[in-house]
Amino acid sequence: MAAKQAEQLNFSAVETARAIRAGEVTAEEVTRACLDRIEEIEPTIHAWAHLAPEVAMEQARQADARRRAGKTTGPLHGVPVGIKDILDTKDFPTEYGTPIHAGRRPAEDATAVALLRQAGAVILGKTVTTEFATMHPGPTANPHDPSRTPGGSSSGSAAAVAAGMVPVAIGTQTNGSVIRPASFCGVVGYKPSFGLIPRHRVLKQSPPLDQIGSFGRTVEDAALAAQCAMGFDSRDPASRPVAVPDLWGLCASEPPMPPTLALFKGPVWDQAEATTHEAFEELAEFLGDGAGEAEVAPVFGEAAELHRRIMEADIAKNYAADYGRAPDRFSEVLSGIIERGREVRAVDYNIAMDRIDLFARSLEPLFEEYDALLTPAVAGEAPMGLDSTGSPAFCTLWTYCGMPAVSLPILHGPAGMPLGVQLVGRRGDDGKLLRTARWLMDKVTAEAEA
Amino acid sequence: MAAKQAEQLNFSAVETARAIRAGEVTAEEVTRACLDRIEEIEPTIHAWAHLAPEVAMEQARQADARRRAGKTTGPLHGVPVGIKDILDTKDFPTEYGTPIHAGRRPAEDATAVALLRQAGAVILGKTVTTEFATMHPGPTANPHDPSRTPGGSSSGSAAAVAAGMVPVAIGTQTNGSVIRPASFCGVVGYKPSFGLIPRHRVLKQSPPLDQIGSFGRTVEDAALAAQCAMGFDSRDPASRPVAVPDLWGLCASEPPMPPTLALFKGPVWDQAEATTHEAFEELAEFLGDGAGEAEVAPVFGEAAELHRRIMEADIAKNYAADYGRAPDRFSEVLSGIIERGREVRAVDYNIAMDRIDLFARSLEPLFEEYDALLTPAVAGEAPMGLDSTGSPAFCTLWTYCGMPAVSLPILHGPAGMPLGVQLVGRRGDDGKLLRTARWLMDKVTAEAEA
Repeated sequence: MAAKQAEQLNFSAVETARAIRAGEVTAEEVTRACLDRIEEIEPTIHAWAHLAPEVAMEQARQADARRRAGKTTGPLHGVPVGIKDILDTKDFPTEYGTPIHAGRRPAEDATAVALLRQAGAVILGKTVTTEFATMHPGPTANPHDPSRTPGGSSSGSAAAVAAGMVPVAIGTQTNGSVIRPASFCGVVGYKPSFGLIPRHRVLKQSPPLDQIGSFGRTVEDAALAAQCAMGFDSRDPASRPVAVPDLWGLCASEPPMPPTLALFKGPVWDQAEATTHEAFEELAEFLGDGAGEAEVAPVFGEAAELHRRIMEADIAKNYAADYGRAPDRFSEVLSGIIERGREVRAVDYNIAMDRIDLFARSLEPLFEEYDALLTPAVAGEAPMGLDSTGSPAFCTLWTYCGMPAVSLPILHGPAGMPLGVQLVGRRGDDGKLLRTARWLMDKVTAEAEA
Repeated sequence: MAAKQAEQLNFSAVETARAIRAGEVTAEEVTRACLDRIEEIEPTIHAWAHLAPEVAMEQARQADARRRAGKTTGPLHGVPVGIKDILDTKDFPTEYGTPIHAGRRPAEDATAVALLRQAGAVILGKTVTTEFATMHPGPTANPHDPSRTPGGSSSGSAAAVAAGMVPVAIGTQTNGSVIRPASFCGVVGYKPSFGLIPRHRVLKQSPPLDQIGSFGRTVEDAALAAQCAMGFDSRDPASRPVAVPDLWGLCASEPPMPPTLALFKGPVWDQAEATTHEAFEELAEFLGDGAGEAEVAPVFGEAAELHRRIMEADIAKNYAADYGRAPDRFSEVLSGIIERGREVRAVDYNIAMDRIDLFARSLEPLFEEYDALLTPAVAGEAPMGLDSTGSPAFCTLWTYCGMPAVSLPILHGPAGMPLGVQLVGRRGDDGKLLRTARWLMDKVTAEAEA
């Protein structure tokens, strides 16, 4: 009955937290419901790298004991969360999606994980990542069609949320690794502004680009999970000692005016499928006066090359020790990245570093006119097969510039698979972006129900 | 008489500021005395790149008017300051020591210059820098022997202070460009911890290494000038929004215990001349129980190569536009740096970047035992000739690690030329370093007078 009740919550994180606070359900019941759901469909989905039901259940029991004792509880008290297997966890292995690190057991939590625990979260387990959070896929299948990729590199986090195994999950994005799997799996993905979630004790792929994000089935859930992982950590040079914004509160608030959105046909627009173009034109039409069209100079097309240079040179450096030790255990695609990355010149790397701020500042005037940019999250619906995770091309510019982005599951492709709408906000203005995203989700849902 | 009075102050910045505040002398009289002294010996010394007596005198008159009107005055009110010609000034050209930028007139002050003006300083003029603040010398001669180099790249700032042309001056150090000329010219040079003086609108040579510093004839003067140039500027990524430490106050205070110093014979000790070795052994002997000996692992010898990699790759990038336009106007030595810098790989550059913090943290335990490290500022006294500025080898490790350093003019070489003693402090602990340096100066001076 209680497990049923938890299921009736449809695993929304916000609702689950509220119900636990109100005593309508226990953390133990919620966690048990998640584990039951996983037991049922994990053999098809393969979203989890590490699960230990007893470790999760023990956290849940402690959360319930804490509440019963009248102690303070955080905004995620008792809510199960999945963590991508490149963030260190003290109670689960962290293996980076490679056999090289099989059995790796960190002694401490990543800061983001520790902050989630402080907020009351039950760390349910570790979700599948692609090899070293790059291109070579893990075993995860798309819950909407297991013959299709869930996207990557945060494959397991997106799939677990999509399959109802856990209300929210944490992923990372160095190119398109939150927004793309969110789009393919039909969930909300949120990649905050660069620096908001500290990366201490997270696999270092490319520090100027690595960004931690969240998945949920609603914008509010993704906002709440991400916000609970935010905080200052001086051990992450990108972290700033500023107050964590009340993203969840801002997200739930009403915009003072109906937001204006700009359909952004940037330098990669031509890489989208024809059906994606049509879907976006229809969406713009549906928004009517609320949607303009944003144009940018062709120079922003260089972001792909600038981003690649930084990422590949950093991968070559940061994975060098492992590659030196066991080159044969690296996939062909990752070996190729490392070999290319070794050749990048410091001068070219640093030109690409300088352009980050130049590009980001050059895009800011768009946000004087528009509340958010509206652009595809991916070229089209999830491709068939599990041997690739799709193209990150529609995410690169925003990752490079460190701008906040949200993928909303409000469109569908020709095969009926989810197709994400990406909203992009001004760097540092995450609250407004999330409020606009929540508003758009509500508007589209209301239309669909009407 | 009044000009004579100003001269009697021996141009100490602290005393000058006090006397102006007390109405014993005017800023106009002090500035006139500086200009008179410059007129007398500048034909021999060539310390100045740009002088415009009327511009300086007008600032002085305004400072006097401000004081007469009873307005608030800063700690450098009416005190003349020389500025290295790579910091932008709105009222003087800024030419970077190269004919390529002849006649360059910035519209605004560098932040450090603006802060000095806010503190009341009279910007007397711009001092000679080597070509683009690198190796190729300008025309400046050493005031102690005009046939010898003053050191570089802040040649004019060091020489102007040494020659009594100005009480304090501002320079910069990317390798040894404050500490070395201070040592050769027999003045106090102070290079603060990385990030303390903002670098907005200063020639960008190598942002991870570029550090602004000061020259004075006393530790207090160098501390006061540097402190007045400190402050937060978000346009400099190294700048941090923290309160400016009261360096001058700390510097003047008495240590709670007699400081303990460690004679540091680091990886470049063997590059010092035999007479320098002897002078330092004697100094350690004079300090007796107050001086130990610090040893570090040979790995710190790699700092020279790591530093070179970053600096040369950055120079290749940052001077690329000028070099592309007018390669024939670059010196052979700078062209060589650029050609080498172009070949540095991003992977190697970033390994060198990572090592900065690793090295700095590895040196911190020394400061649990010792208040400061005592080490040569240079290999020996200023070499003969004006075609080179000497070796920066004794500064590289501290510049690389961003640790604060002071050069004290308390030793002499075999030719009777000044020989600086370098004191190095813990990163961020500039006040303690300056207090220790002031204490050592006083102790040595008292001994000399006894």
